[in-house]
This record gives sequence, C-alpha cells and structure tokens, in this order.
Amino acid sequence: SASFDSTEHPHRRFNALAGEWVLVSPHRSKRPWQGQQEEPEQEHRPAYDPTCYLCPGNSRVGGEVNPKYTDTFVFNNDFGALTPDVPTGGLNEGGLLRAEAESGVCRVICFSPRHDLTLPQMTVPAIRKVVDLWVEEFATLGARPDINYVQIFENKGPMMGCSNPHPHGQIWAQRTVPGEPAKETVQQLAYFQEHGRTLLADYLKIELEKKERVVLENEHFVVLVPFWAVWPFETIIISRRAVQDITQLTPAERDSLADAVRRLTIRYDNLFNISFPYSAGLHQRPTDGQEHPEWHLHMHFFPPLLRSATVRKFMVGYEMLGDPQRDVTPEFSAGRLREQSEVHYKAVPA
Amino acid sequence: SASFDSTEHPHRRFNALAGEWVLVSPHRSKRPWQGQQEEPEQEHRPAYDPTCYLCPGNSRVGGEVNPKYTDTFVFNNDFGALTPDVPTGGLNEGGLLRAEAESGVCRVICFSPRHDLTLPQMTVPAIRKVVDLWVEEFATLGARPDINYVQIFENKGPMMGCSNPHPHGQIWAQRTVPGEPAKETVQQLAYFQEHGRTLLADYLKIELEKKERVVLENEHFVVLVPFWAVWPFETIIISRRAVQDITQLTPAERDSLADAVRRLTIRYDNLFNISFPYSAGLHQRPTDGQEHPEWHLHMHFFPPLLRSATVRKFMVGYEMLGDPQRDVTPEFSAGRLREQSEVHYKAVPA
Ligand SMILES: O=P(O)(O)O[C@H]1O[C@H](CO)[C@@H](O)[C@H](O)[C@H]1O
Ligand SMILES: O=P(O)(O)O[C@H]1O[C@H](CO)[C@@H](O)[C@H](O)[C@H]1O
Repeated sequence: SASFDSTEHPHRRFNALAGEWVLVSPHRSKRPWQGQQEEPEQEHRPAYDPTCYLCPGNSRVGGEVNPKYTDTFVFNNDFGALTPDVPTGGLNEGGLLRAEAESGVCRVICFSPRHDLTLPQMTVPAIRKVVDLWVEEFATLGARPDINYVQIFENKGPMMGCSNPHPHGQIWAQRTVPGEPAKETVQQLAYFQEHGRTLLADYLKIELEKKERVVLENEHFVVLVPFWAVWPFETIIISRRAVQDITQLTPAERDSLADAVRRLTIRYDNLFNISFPYSAGLHQRPTDGQEHPEWHLHMHFFPPLLRSATVRKFMVGYEMLGDPQRDVTPEFSAGRLREQSEVHYKAVPA
Repeated sequence: SASFDSTEHPHRRFNALAGEWVLVSPHRSKRPWQGQQEEPEQEHRPAYDPTCYLCPGNSRVGGEVNPKYTDTFVFNNDFGALTPDVPTGGLNEGGLLRAEAESGVCRVICFSPRHDLTLPQMTVPAIRKVVDLWVEEFATLGARPDINYVQIFENKGPMMGCSNPHPHGQIWAQRTVPGEPAKETVQQLAYFQEHGRTLLADYLKIELEKKERVVLENEHFVVLVPFWAVWPFETIIISRRAVQDITQLTPAERDSLADAVRRLTIRYDNLFNISFPYSAGLHQRPTDGQEHPEWHLHMHFFPPLLRSATVRKFMVGYEMLGDPQRDVTPEFSAGRLREQSEVHYKAVPA
C-alpha cells in the first residue's frame, strides 16, 4: 500500500507557536464551488475624499477635525471597544459566571494622507514612517502601568470588516493579555526554557534550510507560509534577530521591516490582480514589566481569499465546532506567492 | 465615582465551558456602520430543483443518483475533507514541524426532500426524523474503532459558506478529538472531578434562577444565550438531564430536542424577517470507548448577523490576533430573542 504523502493525504499539523492543530485536506481543492461569490472592491478612489473621516483636514464623527497631516497620523478611536476609565469590578458565581472590568485604549493610525493608496502602493520610506509610529505607540502605551499588552493590526478590505478604504490600521492596548498572545507565550516560554533559544529562531533555521515555504527574504526579515498556516495564503514575517518587541529594532531593521511588508503585500495584490484583503498584526512581548526573553517579534497576515478574487475560505461549521481546516497545502501557497512579481500590477503600464 | 456596570462598561467574560475569554464592549453598539453590506438570500425556491444535487432522484457530481427519499437521506460527501483510507505516517522535526496522517468520514444529511424548506419551516415530527438520523449516525460512526469523535453540524446560508440552499447538514467523524471539544473536555472534567456534577448542569441551574439569558424552555431542554457568548445572537441548547451523547435521549427527549430546534430557529428567522444564517452543531462525548461522565450534551448556534439582515459581525483583526470581541451584551440579545414570536413570519398571511 502507498505510504503517507502530505501533498495527497488528509493530515493534521501542529501549530508549535500557538499549541493548536489544523486539519489539512490537500485532495479537497478539486471540489467545485457553487457558493457565495465576493464582490471585488471598487478600485478607483480619489487621492482626497471630502466625505472620508480619515482624510487630512476633514472632521470626524465626534466633531474633531483632522490636521492636514503629510505622512502618518494617529488618534483615539471615536468608538473604541476599550476605554481607559472603567471602574474596577466584576463577578464570579461558582466559577461559572465570571466577568471582570477591562480598561484600555483604542487608537487609529492613518498610514498616508492619500485616500487612494494602500501599503503595497507606498514607498519603503513611507512605510518606514508607519513602522516608526508603531514603535512610538508601542513604547508609549507599553510604558503605562495600566497597559500590559499592545495589539497593533490592520483590517484591509470590506471582506475583512474594514469600513473605510483610507489606508489605516488600529491599536488596541489593554490591561490583560488576550488569548492569542497568551497561548504564544506559553509555547515560546516552554521552548525557551528547554533550549535556551527562541522557538521562532529555531523554526526559522529549519525553514531557511528547506526553503519550500519561504516567500521572500531580506537582510533582517524572512516572510514564509507557516508549516501550520490556517488561512489559504497566510504568512508570517519573522525577524532574523530574536528581539522581543519592535522598539528593539535598529534603524536598518526598521527599513527592512518596511521592505518586507511592501514586497509581501505587492505579491498578495498580484496574486489575483486586486487589492488583496487581509487582517495583519504584530505579536510582541506583553508590556507587563517583565523581560520575556522567550518572545520573538513577528507579524501575522491572515487573508481570506482561496481560489480567486471572488472565492473565499469560510471558517464555519466544522472550523467553529472542531478545528480549523484548509484545502491547499502551505507549500503550494508558498509556491504561488514565490511566483509573483514584486512590481505592483497597477504600476505596470497596461 | 460610578461602580462597575456590565451593561455600560467594557469587560471580559470567561467561557467556563471552553476555558477562554471574550471581550464585551456594550457601549460600542452605538458606532455607525459604513462597511460591507450582505446580500440577503433570495427567498423564492421551488419545492424541487432539477439542478440541485441534493434533491430526490437527481444525480450528484460523482455520478451517483439520489433515491426518491421522502424524509431524510444521508450519504458520503463526494468531496470530503476526511477520507477513511489514509496510510499512517507523519513527521516531527524538533517539535517544530509536526504532522500526522488523519483519517475519517464526511457525511451529508438531507433534512427534507423539499428544496424550499429550512428547519424552522418543518414540523416537529419532521425534525424528529433528523434527530433520529443524528442518533443513528452517531451510534454507527462512534462504534468504529477508527473513529474517536463525531461532529454533527449545519452551515445555513451563503454567508456561512453553504453552497446549496437545499436543507442539509454534515457529519465529520475522525480518529482524533478536535480542539474545541478537547477544550470542553478539559473544562468539564475538572469541574466534574471537583463537584461530582456536570459543569452544564450547575450552569443551567444558575441560568434558570436568573432567567435573564434564557430564550425558551420545554420539558427536556433549555435554550439560552450563554453568559460568555461570542457571536451577537449566539445560543446554546442544553439538555436538562446530564446525558453524554444523543443516543442516550429517550423518545420523549428526542421530540423535545426537535421542538427546541424548531422554536429557536423560528425566533431567529423572525428577528430580521429573513432566513437567518448560522453554523450550528452538537457537542458530545468523544467516542474513544471511555464513559466520559463529565460530558453534557449541548448544541451551539453561531449566527453572524449583528444589527440587521445586511450587517454582520466581523471576527477579524483584534479577534484573530487577540480575543473574540462583542458589542451588544448577551442579556440584550436574549431579550431580543425572547420578544420574537414562535409563529414563522412566512406562515403569517401578509
Ligand atoms: O463542506 P462544504 O459545505 O462544501 O463547505 C463548507 O463547510 C465546511 C465545513 O464547515 C468548510 O470547511 C468550508 O469552508 C465551507 O465552505
Ligand atoms: O474597528 P472597526 O474597523 O470599526 O471594526 C472592525 O475591526 C474590529 C477589530 O478587529 C472588529 O471588532 C470589527 O468587527 C470590525 O468590523
């Protein structure tokens, strides 16, 4: 009888970073799709939109007026899910009804004054300004005694719940450490205690030998499709040097991060010749005053599309009740991303 | 200063069943929505569709012809994510690249020969036939030595990745226990070992005293919005008697489960006067040959809609990188569901 072949046979893969499993069904990519089709985003936007609450000089829902900013701009979310002044309290009935007050800050970061751009259409120096702002915000928020975790992220595209196409991201900073980074802390700590090296340093070494999941590299960062990727074209940006957070990056490393983000997102856009939707975000050490030598800075990209600009992967049913499941292998997806050009399709004369 | 008020202030709630937290931001429901609008499903379907691969007498992609079934019908998924004959094998490189072959069975269950119906439009005796089939399938699949967990579920509506409106559900049965029921096993076992009663029995007792999250009750089941609900109108059906799986239900209890499913899904449809999308599924003991007295049968409903037929909740960005987050409180949602009539809006003459 045939032997096990991960390009053919259903299998589970272990997410060593989060401590969870994903079900991989390589043979399943052949099934026909008759379900919901997504509407590709309308692509022609003006450089300035008078009705956009993120454009320079416009006013926001709360009545405040944006400055005429020329690169990045950050402000407190007018409808933040977290607010700073929450009275402490909670409840606990037999461990079954447990709640506790949560405080924090929600910030919005405009990446550019230009309403019509996205990260892949910006230059490396322009993206570097975004990186610099991430550093500043992480440093300032993380230094507060009431903030023990800072989540920097971007939702791109209407499919990812983004309600304004103006290029922007968010920061949610809070008192407690949320579940995802908490799981990664457990895994990274166990590994660090056993090996004296970070989990991602050793993982990166293996991936750089194998090359089959690597998408692109520069001097200080590697972009790859993780062995345990859940989303069809999920990627992770890992720093070659094991730093715990973005404030530790040298100026050259900050440039490299901007370069990696730019080249990855260009490849994403080129995959289906559209503005590629995703949620992306940095995972860094908790800002709880401890050193966390086990932590290794990285950035996740979770894009929903599967086969084309209009067919997405649905994480429903089995995925909500059982485990995440994927149809194409991470190796296949890495190959597709490696094939793409690093010249943005819109920059090429038609 | 004001004291903590869970109807006003951001807080975290603990999911005692899964051992995770959810961030609740009650104040945030006031934010305006300018993002993606969903297309409500087109509602006029014929009782028989000659192009539907699930209708009686039609042929499927694999070439097989469906029998002229008159109530329910079950078959092996022609594009199953799990297959039975997988050679054993896997890999493990330093705990960082870990995979193992996975085998199993994927089944499709047609709930009715009628292409134009959904569960809330069926009678209790007709839904009882679906319950009977769930029992049979759980018993048969669960008895196999190569199957240690049986996941029964339904994806309803295109928004939930359902590619055929013919009323149907699925069963994925496999060698290993997936992450979600595995987490629930850990939590239920710890509780049972400490208290000698199931976690959900004690939880149900508290909820029946408080009433604020209860949606409906019958002789053998209670439907409520869990204290830790993630999705805006998430509910759970809990059996009053602590049974480990659906095969232990008495005939009267099976009727009651059908009644609970019917009344809940009618209320869902009446909420926004549409065929309400959701993923739903039963959680039951692993079929690993052990007794699992800690397990307590329940059925989860995860519906994506938030404010209307066209505005959904997006689990993106912060939710993917941090923790699930919700805007309206579970108590508010339970109140909305309690207000609904149990006569289906389509059954009412216009
Ligand atoms: O099996 P179906 O209906 O083709 O597919 C649907 O349900 C599956 C199980 O929840 C998911 O993995 C798919 O993403 C979804 O589109
Ligand atoms: O904050 P926004 O952009 O209004 O909202 C978006 O991002 C949030 C954080 O990921 C999510 O909770 C919302 O569901 C999503 O629509």
